[in-house]
Amino acid sequence: MANQLRLQRVSQELNLPPTVLTIFGSTGDLSLNQLLPTLVHMDNEGLLPKNFRLVCVGRREFDTKAFMAFFVKNSRAKLDSKTVANFAKRVIYFKGDIDEPNSFSELQHVIADHKIGKKHDCFSRLYYFATAPEYFAPIASILKHQGLLIGCGEHERTIRILVEKPFGTDLRSAQTLNKELLKFFTEKQIYRIDHYLGKETVQNLLVTRFANDFLEPIWNRDYIDHVELSVFEDVGVGNRLNFFDQTGTLKDLVQNHVVQMLALIAMEEPKDLTPESIRSEKLGVLNALKKFTAKTISGNVVRGQYKEYKDEVGKRTATETFVALKTFVDNKRWNGVPFYIKTGKRLGKKVTEISVHFKKQCNLFGTDRASNVLTLRIQPDESVQLQINNKVPGFGIRLHTGSLDFGYKTAFLTEIPSAYERLFLDFMQGDQRLFMSKEEIEAAWKFTDSLVNNWDNKNAPIQAYASGTTGPKQAEAMIAKDGRRWWTK
Amino acid sequence: MANQLRLQRVSQELNLPPTVLTIFGSTGDLSLNQLLPTLVHMDNEGLLPKNFRLVCVGRREFDTKAFMAFFVKNSRAKLDSKTVANFAKRVIYFKGDIDEPNSFSELQHVIADHKIGKKHDCFSRLYYFATAPEYFAPIASILKHQGLLIGCGEHERTIRILVEKPFGTDLRSAQTLNKELLKFFTEKQIYRIDHYLGKETVQNLLVTRFANDFLEPIWNRDYIDHVELSVFEDVGVGNRLNFFDQTGTLKDLVQNHVVQMLALIAMEEPKDLTPESIRSEKLGVLNALKKFTAKTISGNVVRGQYKEYKDEVGKRTATETFVALKTFVDNKRWNGVPFYIKTGKRLGKKVTEISVHFKKQCNLFGTDRASNVLTLRIQPDESVQLQINNKVPGFGIRLHTGSLDFGYKTAFLTEIPSAYERLFLDFMQGDQRLFMSKEEIEAAWKFTDSLVNNWDNKNAPIQAYASGTTGPKQAEAMIAKDGRRWWTK
Repeated sequence: MANQLRLQRVSQELNLPPTVLTIFGSTGDLSLNQLLPTLVHMDNEGLLPKNFRLVCVGRREFDTKAFMAFFVKNSRAKLDSKTVANFAKRVIYFKGDIDEPNSFSELQHVIADHKIGKKHDCFSRLYYFATAPEYFAPIASILKHQGLLIGCGEHERTIRILVEKPFGTDLRSAQTLNKELLKFFTEKQIYRIDHYLGKETVQNLLVTRFANDFLEPIWNRDYIDHVELSVFEDVGVGNRLNFFDQTGTLKDLVQNHVVQMLALIAMEEPKDLTPESIRSEKLGVLNALKKFTAKTISGNVVRGQYKEYKDEVGKRTATETFVALKTFVDNKRWNGVPFYIKTGKRLGKKVTEISVHFKKQCNLFGTDRASNVLTLRIQPDESVQLQINNKVPGFGIRLHTGSLDFGYKTAFLTEIPSAYERLFLDFMQGDQRLFMSKEEIEAAWKFTDSLVNNWDNKNAPIQAYASGTTGPKQAEAMIAKDGRRWWTK
Repeated sequence: MANQLRLQRVSQELNLPPTVLTIFGSTGDLSLNQLLPTLVHMDNEGLLPKNFRLVCVGRREFDTKAFMAFFVKNSRAKLDSKTVANFAKRVIYFKGDIDEPNSFSELQHVIADHKIGKKHDCFSRLYYFATAPEYFAPIASILKHQGLLIGCGEHERTIRILVEKPFGTDLRSAQTLNKELLKFFTEKQIYRIDHYLGKETVQNLLVTRFANDFLEPIWNRDYIDHVELSVFEDVGVGNRLNFFDQTGTLKDLVQNHVVQMLALIAMEEPKDLTPESIRSEKLGVLNALKKFTAKTISGNVVRGQYKEYKDEVGKRTATETFVALKTFVDNKRWNGVPFYIKTGKRLGKKVTEISVHFKKQCNLFGTDRASNVLTLRIQPDESVQLQINNKVPGFGIRLHTGSLDFGYKTAFLTEIPSAYERLFLDFMQGDQRLFMSKEEIEAAWKFTDSLVNNWDNKNAPIQAYASGTTGPKQAEAMIAKDGRRWWTK
């Protein structure tokens, strides 16, 4: 409750402008289960602009009422019927088929008829591309040709688009897509989403690192032994089989979420909190990520596939559902410090965390003791933990390894806002900090392409692993040969 | 229970030799309320040597049975009668008056008659001086002349003495006392107690500092803004009026407990865990403690006296029940870093803690935020806390100051052994690590003498303060003029 009041206050402070948000792909999974429920929730909490309309675009033959009924029926989200009914007043369904650009000739009128705010055109026109990536460029073209990209002229960024992932399938396709979008929009108008960046704990990485001065002097190769990033999923591929089998874990998770977290952990201090400064320092890390060659993949990369996968797909494919790898950030701060990444499906539990392992110096206690490890738990049970050694009460000097703990839920006694909620608000107020730049996307693809283009059955054969385990045993061997162990198990 | 089992195991590992422990001053407050109850407890837990006898020396006309009855009747400790009865079998009372050395002529026989162990003289003879300090030298002389200082010749340190505080009343008297004792004993035989050093959390200072590698690089003037040491008592002088009024808080608490904790916090890393190495590095700090002059006292020292004190004493005296001061450790590591000390009686709560305040660097979050503070709580609620900044969940980047916590009681689920228990065991096994060397005692007196010899009504007038407050307002002003605030309140 206290938190809701505070969020409302924040929203009022933001003074969000009158907004028409148009979602393309509004009958898809993402819209039904994430986007619409989030907007319903925000509406109920007073977190949407006072003047707000939502235009839902889809291929299906619906009027708005039928669309809302379809949404309620098909969404897996928990919805309160009264709240949905209130929200429905702000919604308009528009039937349009991207393959038939002419079907959008009326969209301009729909938006104009429902224009909001005092001044004729002075409201934000936001477009959310929640479709398959091959439609991104066609939608942009439709918007242009239907005259939907005209702002009020006074407010530079009144037109914005939000593009869902995956942003391309490799460097070349991402470059092409960027080029296409930049024909119609400036970089400042394009919001490339990685919803991990909307997570509170991911945002807190920046704060933890730079608002705690004791960390900066020890945040480098002199004092850090290695860093581990783990994203464990407990579920399998589910109903994303077709998409997933063409994509694989590397592109689905590492290229965006993992690499973005790595950038936040490893980045230099930005000179301020502007999107430009933050993105620029993240880009520095992405560019410094060591690229793989066929030779360096061997021994440093493990691909895995859970045993049931081939039955789910119905055939044997070489798509990885698991990746473990060791990489480096080749710059002054991190030279020689391994970054171990481990992520996969059906790993027995769902957890995302980053652990920073400090070096053990040889001192009066020797080295036969636990390292200091800072663990940043992204989800679930969001927390910060620092493993420390204390004396065991009693005689002699025996070490006990415990941890200093900071739990989010205990500290804030509140539900942590969802990533999409946060990102919607940033989109509406025009804050690009948590979205990815063209350069970041392309740098991340360069890194993953160096794997995809170079791994094969010899240097990184697909290893089968049993569901509910921590992955193939080769991943254990990979880190063990460095004299280390996985922290997240 | 688990802990008791473990402690027993430790005791067996120690393989404590047959021991006769003689306590001088066994009818005094300390013996009745601390030493004897601790020994009863240790006996019950199997923490005493298998062959163990306790000789209790006192002026009073008792036989052993009467003495034990007197102990049970007068001790404030909670005692179980069966446990005491068991323990009584190991006790002999000996009537002796230190003012009449001849009254000890039979002590040799008492000890010899109850000699233990296989070999005639091969048992530890330990003497505990729990009397007023003026008796320390006379007792030593008695022991010598009664032939009680003869060991077995094979085991070098079979004869040991433990000397209670206060060890002297100033540098000169401490030097004299050391000289007297060293006539009869080697430095290795003398155990100068500061029971604070037996506290688990004080012992943990060494472990926290040197078994956690992330601390050493930031444990210096570049990253630490200041250190605060606070010892708050909630009670007044009680039944120690006569002693206390001649002593005052500076000598009663600062000269020993506080200065010893400061030494552990500020010391260089000892090359190993031997008593010699640890004491030598502590001594380095004590020698580097900046001495006061009449001039530097002004503005850096506040003396206080709680308002009821003069009525308790029955007259107006200049004895301080409160001291706050700022000092420095003049060496490479600490040059320019203030160490603030605050201690007193009737301060509203009982707490001892040390807080290390890290510097705020000016960075992308500016300096308008909380510092990182490492708080080492010595008592009660033993804990380690690190104050950190996190992001407040929600929009924008707002900082929340919380703490990473490690609580002893939660971690170890056990009663923490008492300081005297620990020190008794170390005394019996011949470990001087937690006892103070001649040089340490004298260096600490040099520091406190520089205050006592130089403070007067002008540079540090006695300030009255109300019981239950945090002391005189001048102490607030003292730290406020440096732009800082007391952490412990």
